[in-house]
Amino acid sequence: MNYFSSNFTLGILGGGQLGKMMLYETRKWDIKTQVLDPSAEAPCRIATDYFEQGDLMDFETVYNFGKKVDVLTFEIEGVNVDALEKLENEGIKVYPSAATLRNIQDKGIQKQFYKEHHIPTSPFKVYKDKYELNEAIVRKELHFPFVWKSCTGGYDGKGVSIIRDAEDVIPLSEGACIAEKLIPFKNELAVIVARNPSGEVKTYPVVEMEFHPEANQVEYVICPARIDEAVAKKARAVATKVSEAFEHVGLLAVEMFQTEDNEILVNEVAPRPHNSGHYSIEASYTNQFEQQIRAILDLPLGNTDSKVGGIMVNLVGAEGHTGQVVYKNIEKILAMEGVTPHIYGKKETRPFRKMGHVTIVNKDLNQARRIAEEVKRTIQVIAP
Amino acid sequence: MNYFSSNFTLGILGGGQLGKMMLYETRKWDIKTQVLDPSAEAPCRIATDYFEQGDLMDFETVYNFGKKVDVLTFEIEGVNVDALEKLENEGIKVYPSAATLRNIQDKGIQKQFYKEHHIPTSPFKVYKDKYELNEAIVRKELHFPFVWKSCTGGYDGKGVSIIRDAEDVIPLSEGACIAEKLIPFKNELAVIVARNPSGEVKTYPVVEMEFHPEANQVEYVICPARIDEAVAKKARAVATKVSEAFEHVGLLAVEMFQTEDNEILVNEVAPRPHNSGHYSIEASYTNQFEQQIRAILDLPLGNTDSKVGGIMVNLVGAEGHTGQVVYKNIEKILAMEGVTPHIYGKKETRPFRKMGHVTIVNKDLNQARRIAEEVKRTIQVIAP
Repeated sequence: MNYFSSNFTLGILGGGQLGKMMLYETRKWDIKTQVLDPSAEAPCRIATDYFEQGDLMDFETVYNFGKKVDVLTFEIEGVNVDALEKLENEGIKVYPSAATLRNIQDKGIQKQFYKEHHIPTSPFKVYKDKYELNEAIVRKELHFPFVWKSCTGGYDGKGVSIIRDAEDVIPLSEGACIAEKLIPFKNELAVIVARNPSGEVKTYPVVEMEFHPEANQVEYVICPARIDEAVAKKARAVATKVSEAFEHVGLLAVEMFQTEDNEILVNEVAPRPHNSGHYSIEASYTNQFEQQIRAILDLPLGNTDSKVGGIMVNLVGAEGHTGQVVYKNIEKILAMEGVTPHIYGKKETRPFRKMGHVTIVNKDLNQARRIAEEVKRTIQVIAP
Repeated sequence: MNYFSSNFTLGILGGGQLGKMMLYETRKWDIKTQVLDPSAEAPCRIATDYFEQGDLMDFETVYNFGKKVDVLTFEIEGVNVDALEKLENEGIKVYPSAATLRNIQDKGIQKQFYKEHHIPTSPFKVYKDKYELNEAIVRKELHFPFVWKSCTGGYDGKGVSIIRDAEDVIPLSEGACIAEKLIPFKNELAVIVARNPSGEVKTYPVVEMEFHPEANQVEYVICPARIDEAVAKKARAVATKVSEAFEHVGLLAVEMFQTEDNEILVNEVAPRPHNSGHYSIEASYTNQFEQQIRAILDLPLGNTDSKVGGIMVNLVGAEGHTGQVVYKNIEKILAMEGVTPHIYGKKETRPFRKMGHVTIVNKDLNQARRIAEEVKRTIQVIAP
């Protein structure tokens, strides 16, 4: 198949920042694209050959969009899987496949999948609604504390809560959920696995999510993770096993816990480019977006090694600010060494909305870490 | 000035590959752009907020286009300078300035400028037309061999000839030209200088153009150049002097000769991102296109150092092939280590047309050089 400057068309469901960064790569290789997104203001509205506004969960919309492309992918899990399945049956290549997405979209099914495939994960139970959950608590089958996760619709920390007492249960949503054992962990790690239809597999180095000591929010994604070589090796092996179990094609971001006794437990996966891989644009030989294109088009996978150490800081809307965004002090961080801001192009900021990210690269990872702290202290996403 | 996700608009005259690669950076920072190009099929037709088809040499077209933007730049020298001047007078920021471009556009004026500013360059004479040139030869004021350059319209090796005898004079064009002394040189080098309106200046490392031993064509651009540190230092100093003499804003690519006795002579300059800086996308902390945006928007300049060694190979149309392009064996070069092809998006190939380039990066420059040779042997730009 000839993808370059040809009539071949890649369809992308979702037109957010992940799609936008994927389009840098399709432009680099002059691959024709079309994008579907519910918002007319989506970051992907330009740089694609054809942009369509429409509902990603609507069967007809996704099906009709998919019929016009040669290969279909997505940058968000919330898409109509029935439509993907029908498209596959009619000969459109869908990567990752509808079957893979079905195993991932619902967190209950995803956890069950790990259990069946002997993939290490924290003990859990699935409840079909809040009524059942409450019952389990009352009957003392389920004990505080535990981690509650909504089976569907979770994103960017939404749909996940640590439940310490009865009070915490009250605000939880009604739908199906899982309760997981709260595991004390030393590190939260992630590995991105790339796999193409021919079965070639490559893993990126292990990254580490460094949390704010008080706010309990991820502050820095650090590559490579500051962990033992043996633990890193184990994490990459577990991630590979997960990718192969799902028969996944494309990128799979595998989020994991390193427990107090150095066990690796799979937390959850995302079948697409991932926030934890953004550092790769500046730091890796092959960035995750190029790798995604290589994987789904069955091209040879690129080198996943890093040229330099990389740290990523999310740019989220400041508390108390809603409206037309301004990136205050961005010119100050541009003067710092090895600093690259990425602006996603959302015009309105809201508290905690992901508006962009900043990558800091340096041959010395400790130096990068110090500059990252300075970046975080300096730039502000506000609506003045 | 707030450039990011704002109403600020950057105008770009010319929509070829250089503009296209500049648009990766404006997308990354969500800077609004508009592009003018004579071709409706220009590589910049997408990824810009607004594309206009029109003649870059037409006063009215350029003037009317420029009136709609806040800052105006160009990715090709062949634009109407009178329109730029009028726009400047009316308060539009034009970078590089009309005055700088006037000193560069005409090679006779450019050479004269070097002489007046004591910038080392090969001895030359300007002739107002071919009649005058012939007369100088007949009167034996001008001796074979010499280098002939058309004062205007030269590009990608066109408009330059080595004249060894009377026979070689016959095909030359009629217009104004210069005759330069043919200087034997060891190396052809280039340095890209970035300068912003505040006067901050940074130079990229010296690159080396490696020629094919028989065809006398540049085959590889190699960064860093394999030359003595003292020569590299001198080359960067000369390039800085050139940039300051022109009071240049933006990127200035300075092409130079290293003579047999290690003198540096300025050959010519390009006031824009340049083929000799393409390696920077993969190899440098700040690629030349991001640097160009930083410079013309008076943002702090980025680090010009390299993360890894970089080599660039041009992808030009194969001889004997005209028509719908195919990049034969591109999947083979994608399997080689550290190899990134860039496809400009021109649908038709013609013999020697620049269709793209390939960057090879590696911590070991010699290894990169070996892979570059393999790349060149493998990929073919054809019309099957």
